[in-house]
Amino acid sequence: MRDAYHEELDSISDGLVEMARLVGSAMGRATTALLDADLALAESVIAADDKVNALHHDLENRAIDLLARQQPVATDLRIVVTSLRMSADLERCGDLARHVAKVARLRFPETAVPNDLHPIVLEMGQLAQRLVSKAGQVIATKDVDAALELERDDDAIDALHRELFSHLLDDRWQHGIETAVDVTLVGRYYERFADHAVSVAKRVVFLVTGEHAGDFVAAAESASAE
Amino acid sequence: MRDAYHEELDSISDGLVEMARLVGSAMGRATTALLDADLALAESVIAADDKVNALHHDLENRAIDLLARQQPVATDLRIVVTSLRMSADLERCGDLARHVAKVARLRFPETAVPNDLHPIVLEMGQLAQRLVSKAGQVIATKDVDAALELERDDDAIDALHRELFSHLLDDRWQHGIETAVDVTLVGRYYERFADHAVSVAKRVVFLVTGEHAGDFVAAAESASAE
Repeated sequence: MRDAYHEELDSISDGLVEMARLVGSAMGRATTALLDADLALAESVIAADDKVNALHHDLENRAIDLLARQQPVATDLRIVVTSLRMSADLERCGDLARHVAKVARLRFPETAVPNDLHPIVLEMGQLAQRLVSKAGQVIATKDVDAALELERDDDAIDALHRELFSHLLDDRWQHGIETAVDVTLVGRYYERFADHAVSVAKRVVFLVTGEHAGDFVAAAESASAE
Repeated sequence: MRDAYHEELDSISDGLVEMARLVGSAMGRATTALLDADLALAESVIAADDKVNALHHDLENRAIDLLARQQPVATDLRIVVTSLRMSADLERCGDLARHVAKVARLRFPETAVPNDLHPIVLEMGQLAQRLVSKAGQVIATKDVDAALELERDDDAIDALHRELFSHLLDDRWQHGIETAVDVTLVGRYYERFADHAVSVAKRVVFLVTGEHAGDFVAAAESASAE
């Protein structure tokens, strides 16, 4: 029974890695759709989120089923509960990629982001994609050092977010209110996406380093709280 | 053992009701701080969020401990897993109330919200507070009919949110970019707060009406997804 149990646990982990891959790809494509005003690409990102949601619900059902059938305790229990949380984080990343794609669709055939802000938004999108890609690696490899890299990338996203705001609040802003609203929301979507990716990695770190449930929950929650 | 188990489950439920009360009060006070430019009140909301976070971590530890010690199955297992999710929803409501208070603090001694938008923002704040108050009642009473009321209130918040945007995007907007950014973010905070409150109520409904885990997860998640 223990072997079947650990096989099922591995399979849940594989599902989380696949979710990370899907939402990373979605955010990359959403960013391209946003900057290129590519309606077809935006629509495909919006439609593809259903697959992420289906994976999420499947993983949750399997995790709950595993709790019921195998009644794990101690570390094994914490791994399953943490998997539920990581699945919720990654599902939310999918929503945020879809939100970015919806802004692209709303403003088509215009681009929602003015040309002078393209480099910042492009870099935020690339960093967000890289963050969740690394989070997927951390789930697969349990590599704690790689997890710590995510914090640096997240700092870089926060710096870009501040730079975006400094443009918005500059007296020379010439793009009007609608664009300011779009840029404000898009900036927030990238920031939240990155927070959830960091939260996933932190949850793995605290499982691996064997902190008490309370501590790892606290650290992961504080990462996802802002 | 079963009695001790159900006592502990009741105590977790009481903790969730207390969290709902705290975050409802926080959002009410944050809204007052925002509209009155009351720095001391804003600071108190920001500081008080620590208590919500502490309650959240305490509830999570107790729920995980309960899973380990009592190894519930079927409905009992779903109640504990759902409690973990409701605690996360309410913790996030606390963050969002704190975010509103931080906008108030940032713009002090000015008010972040222009006078002509005060009625809309006041009503969003009142509805948000009422939603989470009803969600707390639903946790306490398991009253499915009351839970359905939350959907109507959430529709009212969404309508106010659209009205806020119509002001922002009106050519006659005269409040500048900084205020547009603040109003955009604040509107989003209220909307997300309401989504999490509705999600809490839906989770209770699906527990009570006895749907399969997958279905109640799906419904609750789709409520919290937008």
